[in-house]
Amino acid sequence: MTPAKAYAAQTHTSPLAPWNFERREVGAQDVQFDINYCGVCHSDLHQIRNEWFPGIFPMVPGHEIVGKVTKVGAAVKKFKVGDLVGVGCLVDSCRGCENCQHGLEQYCNNAVGTYNATGKDGLPTYGGYSSVMVVHEDFTLKVSEKLNLAAVAPLLCAGITTYSPLRHWKIGKGHKVAVLGLGGLGHMAVKFANAFGAEVTVLSTSAGKEAEAKKLGAHKFVLTTDKAQAKSVRGYFDFIVDTVSAPHDFRFYLGMLRTDGTHILVGLPSQPLEIPPFSIVGGRKSVAGSSIGGIPETQEMLDYCAEKNIVSDIELININYINQAYDRMLKGDVRYRFVIDMATL
Amino acid sequence: MTPAKAYAAQTHTSPLAPWNFERREVGAQDVQFDINYCGVCHSDLHQIRNEWFPGIFPMVPGHEIVGKVTKVGAAVKKFKVGDLVGVGCLVDSCRGCENCQHGLEQYCNNAVGTYNATGKDGLPTYGGYSSVMVVHEDFTLKVSEKLNLAAVAPLLCAGITTYSPLRHWKIGKGHKVAVLGLGGLGHMAVKFANAFGAEVTVLSTSAGKEAEAKKLGAHKFVLTTDKAQAKSVRGYFDFIVDTVSAPHDFRFYLGMLRTDGTHILVGLPSQPLEIPPFSIVGGRKSVAGSSIGGIPETQEMLDYCAEKNIVSDIELININYINQAYDRMLKGDVRYRFVIDMATL
Repeated sequence: MTPAKAYAAQTHTSPLAPWNFERREVGAQDVQFDINYCGVCHSDLHQIRNEWFPGIFPMVPGHEIVGKVTKVGAAVKKFKVGDLVGVGCLVDSCRGCENCQHGLEQYCNNAVGTYNATGKDGLPTYGGYSSVMVVHEDFTLKVSEKLNLAAVAPLLCAGITTYSPLRHWKIGKGHKVAVLGLGGLGHMAVKFANAFGAEVTVLSTSAGKEAEAKKLGAHKFVLTTDKAQAKSVRGYFDFIVDTVSAPHDFRFYLGMLRTDGTHILVGLPSQPLEIPPFSIVGGRKSVAGSSIGGIPETQEMLDYCAEKNIVSDIELININYINQAYDRMLKGDVRYRFVIDMATL
Repeated sequence: MTPAKAYAAQTHTSPLAPWNFERREVGAQDVQFDINYCGVCHSDLHQIRNEWFPGIFPMVPGHEIVGKVTKVGAAVKKFKVGDLVGVGCLVDSCRGCENCQHGLEQYCNNAVGTYNATGKDGLPTYGGYSSVMVVHEDFTLKVSEKLNLAAVAPLLCAGITTYSPLRHWKIGKGHKVAVLGLGGLGHMAVKFANAFGAEVTVLSTSAGKEAEAKKLGAHKFVLTTDKAQAKSVRGYFDFIVDTVSAPHDFRFYLGMLRTDGTHILVGLPSQPLEIPPFSIVGGRKSVAGSSIGGIPETQEMLDYCAEKNIVSDIELININYINQAYDRMLKGDVRYRFVIDMATL
């Protein structure tokens, strides 16, 4: 067993605080690595607060993890000591179902989350707000030396969560895409949709975000609280990438889609979406969901980012700042992702 | 002007009762025809009761209309006196927008409904519970002499509303399709999905419908109130064609879809759909809507039905039975569509 330091929530009402535990011995196909950086995802907060489902405590959050390999199992083929690696939201799956066979491990009924889940060994999984990690090589990703490593971390969740639907729906040249919500997910959606050649519009309730949106790659900005601006995009978009976790007015946004347009949900509000039937039946529109991405596509995304020099815009924090960072994240006060410098653990 | 007899609702709380009005003179591109039969659609009742939006009264419902041409305008090219014709939910549209250009007149912002709408002449439109109709030839459809004319009437709404999404999503061989709700729309969805080569399952809460469902062309029947049967189709279907207008549990039905499955709404519940985000994000599922069909596709559907000998299963009624028919329709007590014999007007 390998001793690990971490920050954990002891209950769903506790703040995060230091906690020690042990990682499993490195198995034949395992990769052990020291964690350098871990991104802070809104879902970390949802989960430590039991906002989605009752969690497994103590809980060590974190699924945007990058680090350097320190040890590999005897049968490991893809990694060696010293390699930069990443781990996202998944650390295992059944490997046999149709989803797994198609590289869609995120939809496997027996997928194992990086934290707040139970591994095949029956033990809880612990995430990336920790010093060291042991993961099967099949769920370990190669990370390029070319990019700022801290800014790569959020690609493992915010990056793939937006990259995957844009690829699945073949979004690119000739498409008009709206990005709803300019946070951790939204700012990556803007970067990718721009890189793929689409016309990108940021929909926002904050006039102050226009300059930032355009700097990130948006071609247009619509202040949705301005009636004339909102009206100007009625029936306009082919796709809306919706990163908003708070309740919002689907009738309003669906009205901005063209015939056959698709509203893609990548955020996870705690409450059911309320979809007026006429808003989708009129115009043959769809409300679709998409969850992270599979392992092959996550590697493809990391390679694409290395090639195109795409990373997340981050604010690097010390681990003892994490509870304050959560408070700020809740207010949308981060440009655009907190990343923990694990050297401060 | 041409005198017309009809049944109309004088207010949104009145029963239907006899009413006389006038149809416009036959214009250069108009077709005038005597109505032989008119189907009774649930939306007729929604509209006379203001359940969707405030209606235009007096209201003559009916948009599943078939009859025989009695007069044509000087410029009419496609029809002659004595032809069998049909009219569905639309009698006009702008003709110039992208939707109209693509034969998707049903999504034109200026489409004119067959009743409870205002025509380009500024006058209210009146539907098919009447003796005679005058419609622009572009919105008049050719009806085959081969089929039982009364049973053709429901194709103009129930038929095209189910045919169109099955064609749009290219549903056929190799697909597993569930049909939710075995009424006017549902029974046509079963017939078409079967004809297109899909494996068809009827989802129902009434065990008694199994034999009927299979007679209509369903390969399987799932009694959704039976836990074991419901469980047997978890993650099973590629598509669900949802014809139910009452509120229903989307979490339950979305759980029956495979990864990338699509739940297609063709009914129009009065209340917003409540979609749990995890139900679509998990499995990259979609909830889509579809509304009737455009004019070219409606003609294609009528021609396909003539070729394949497909019609609706109907109960023919006299016009003075219409209010009782509504009561029975609300209880689902019809196999599967009431059609009014307009000779009884």
